[in-house]
Amino acid sequence: MLPSETITQLKRIIGKEGVLTTKEDLNAYSYDATSVWTHMPEAVVLPTTTEQVAGVLKLANEKMIPVTPRGGGTSLSGGPIPIKGGIVLCTTRMNKILEINKDNLSATVETGLVLQDFNNALSKEGLFYPPDPQSFLSCTLGGMVAENAGGPHCVKYGVTKQYVLGLKVVLASGYVMKVGSKTVKNRTGYELVSLFTGSEGTLGVITEITLRLLPLPPARKTIVVIFDDMVVAAAAVTNILSSGVIPAKLEIADNFLIRRIEEIMPVGLPVEAKALLLIQTDGSPATVEADSKQISSILKRSGAKEVRVAKDEAEADGYWNSRKAAQAAIYSTAPSVMVEDVTVPRDKLVEFIQKIEEISQKYGLVIPILGHIGDGNLHPNILTDIKDKENFAKAKEAMAEIFDTALTLGGVISGEHGIGLDKKPFLKKAADPLAIEIMKGIKRILDPNNILNPGKIWEEDGTT
Amino acid sequence: MLPSETITQLKRIIGKEGVLTTKEDLNAYSYDATSVWTHMPEAVVLPTTTEQVAGVLKLANEKMIPVTPRGGGTSLSGGPIPIKGGIVLCTTRMNKILEINKDNLSATVETGLVLQDFNNALSKEGLFYPPDPQSFLSCTLGGMVAENAGGPHCVKYGVTKQYVLGLKVVLASGYVMKVGSKTVKNRTGYELVSLFTGSEGTLGVITEITLRLLPLPPARKTIVVIFDDMVVAAAAVTNILSSGVIPAKLEIADNFLIRRIEEIMPVGLPVEAKALLLIQTDGSPATVEADSKQISSILKRSGAKEVRVAKDEAEADGYWNSRKAAQAAIYSTAPSVMVEDVTVPRDKLVEFIQKIEEISQKYGLVIPILGHIGDGNLHPNILTDIKDKENFAKAKEAMAEIFDTALTLGGVISGEHGIGLDKKPFLKKAADPLAIEIMKGIKRILDPNNILNPGKIWEEDGTT
Repeated sequence: MLPSETITQLKRIIGKEGVLTTKEDLNAYSYDATSVWTHMPEAVVLPTTTEQVAGVLKLANEKMIPVTPRGGGTSLSGGPIPIKGGIVLCTTRMNKILEINKDNLSATVETGLVLQDFNNALSKEGLFYPPDPQSFLSCTLGGMVAENAGGPHCVKYGVTKQYVLGLKVVLASGYVMKVGSKTVKNRTGYELVSLFTGSEGTLGVITEITLRLLPLPPARKTIVVIFDDMVVAAAAVTNILSSGVIPAKLEIADNFLIRRIEEIMPVGLPVEAKALLLIQTDGSPATVEADSKQISSILKRSGAKEVRVAKDEAEADGYWNSRKAAQAAIYSTAPSVMVEDVTVPRDKLVEFIQKIEEISQKYGLVIPILGHIGDGNLHPNILTDIKDKENFAKAKEAMAEIFDTALTLGGVISGEHGIGLDKKPFLKKAADPLAIEIMKGIKRILDPNNILNPGKIWEEDGTT
Repeated sequence: MLPSETITQLKRIIGKEGVLTTKEDLNAYSYDATSVWTHMPEAVVLPTTTEQVAGVLKLANEKMIPVTPRGGGTSLSGGPIPIKGGIVLCTTRMNKILEINKDNLSATVETGLVLQDFNNALSKEGLFYPPDPQSFLSCTLGGMVAENAGGPHCVKYGVTKQYVLGLKVVLASGYVMKVGSKTVKNRTGYELVSLFTGSEGTLGVITEITLRLLPLPPARKTIVVIFDDMVVAAAAVTNILSSGVIPAKLEIADNFLIRRIEEIMPVGLPVEAKALLLIQTDGSPATVEADSKQISSILKRSGAKEVRVAKDEAEADGYWNSRKAAQAAIYSTAPSVMVEDVTVPRDKLVEFIQKIEEISQKYGLVIPILGHIGDGNLHPNILTDIKDKENFAKAKEAMAEIFDTALTLGGVISGEHGIGLDKKPFLKKAADPLAIEIMKGIKRILDPNNILNPGKIWEEDGTT
């Protein structure tokens, strides 16, 4: 526990109602959306202003107290787990939209704004912010920037880092720094905006974000496609992408997921089907019509068993809601679920899916696959039980083999979830050793006392 | 001059034909596309492999010899000027396309590949790499990454950093490091790819680049628009962008440029017109048709005097070639030209153009304006004479005032050209002082002996 003097100082900075210390309260900030990581903080602070964040960091830096920034707590890599104890700095009370600038196609928001609230405000203005992690009902923009989040839209629109124009960041010392700008082009020295983006809360606490926006596409169409084989579905994906049309979303789910969907919110999928592609086109009505026809025709030529175009938005919403629910529903099928996030070049998708199926058989583990296949980004979910030592050890071996396979195919161990705690032991395999030393060097410049989200990304070796 | 022993060692690494030392040869590498910066190198090396680059850097690092990387030498900020002497490392012999991967929508190229050669190879495959600096006939991909280059396409498609997936970089020590991957999503620690992108050759020498590609849009249309007033034209740009349609290109030119165009390659523009917008739409034929109609109608409502849609590609090419030639032709109108690259939020364009006109009048200087107005990125060209001290001093004052105006409006001093030598004195005004210290700290980690492109980006103060 933190000394009572420190708690008093925190209350002086934030106000009494913004500092939590009871066991029940702390418990709520001890986990994220992974089902395997947990650690209790010693205090939780809920600042409402950048100045309060600065005050907390200044104090923590003087007293060498770990500070773990946290948004909606929806991380799938253990990012907001306060693994070294100390303070959880939760940003959810900093949730204002500061500006929506339609003429500049930009918005400036506070870090704790929830994505769905942002999207609702934007759609009223005919504007669009594409990155769309499926935790959109509770994930925050600050968390998305810290994790460089992805989602289904990224196949056409790119990831978070492609939209961040400017940041207000509080450094470990409490210094408040602005990087970037409201302009869509900016060549003012090194790309510090990109450095903070994806730094997983280890380099600074982001408090304000300026984002590039797009006009909201006027029309959308959803295509549901059934296959007898995951590998044939993966090959069809490559056929679509190389044909000159990029869908707005291009998702895959396997038979396990199809059955879960039909159990939890049935949309009339054949439960014996081995693979489902869920595709969205967007743009002008004419483009959507033309793209949907082109995609449907490629799918038929590529061995699809059934190609169904949603007749209206209600039907389309049903499919997308079931896609979203399916991921969540996997959790109820096993005591523990390891949600992976491997990504390969799209020309290696067929081979990669074959290998995952082989690994599943080899270890006798159920590994449902869904994911953003248009990006080469798959989420194999390893069903296990953290309390069953033997099974959990096997699951960890299978995970390591999936990582090795991805790396061998020129892929990466994480496409959008980040390294956090979950993939820390694998960073050495996934990055050049000197690249890791450079990252650690940058960390030392920005956070010499290692107070910001310590214990994440790389294994400790005494140098940081 | 370098000691003859060093020259002998360089020849051993590169081969005799790849090391230039005569005054005539060195002279060709003493300048770039700015008309105000020049400095002689002591030797020029033209490596053909990454290993040769590594050998040169290892030697230079041991002997503390400055190394200035250079691609096509088309920089507009003095980036490839060897201001500290030493070695110019010219990459133009490393110009192979290593892979075009249509299934993954990616390509891997050597650093010295010329953009136009890349575009030609891609278009045969129906593929598209959007960033398009107007020096495309000679600029190299490595230079584009080092400068995070832009161009007309960026209004719709974003800048270079939005396309770089992976890099092979030789560090100052000679260590060869790979960062990034061939995947479109990658969350392997900090974004080192983005750090090297835009680092102006100060952090490492890029030797291989993996780029994200798009399908080539099947159709294009060009719209030429005449206005009586630059400010009315700028307001029309905002009207287009906020209407829900983003053109592929959205360029402006003023009366000075219109007259230059009609002198050098006439396309039938009214020479008395005060402003020209040159617009391209792209996409499916139906989209192009619909977007062009929408844009034309907005333009007419926004006070355009004439809206002309090019009837075929030949007519369209004429306009775009004249746009490209116009920038080049400015150089022949004055002994020296200071090409600026200021960028403002798009809602400040009207105000910004008014201010530039005021500054032009205040100093009695001709400052033709053209640029990528859809990005808020303008290139005011200050016509001056570096040999006329009084006039050149005035020009520098006007430049400083344009920079101040951009910053006051929430803009930046460079959108796409980089800081280099040209804007070095202004970095302090344009970035947080601690941000500059962080940049210097990163530079010290990667290049402790300060051999890589020394003397660029920030003023020296003895700390680097």
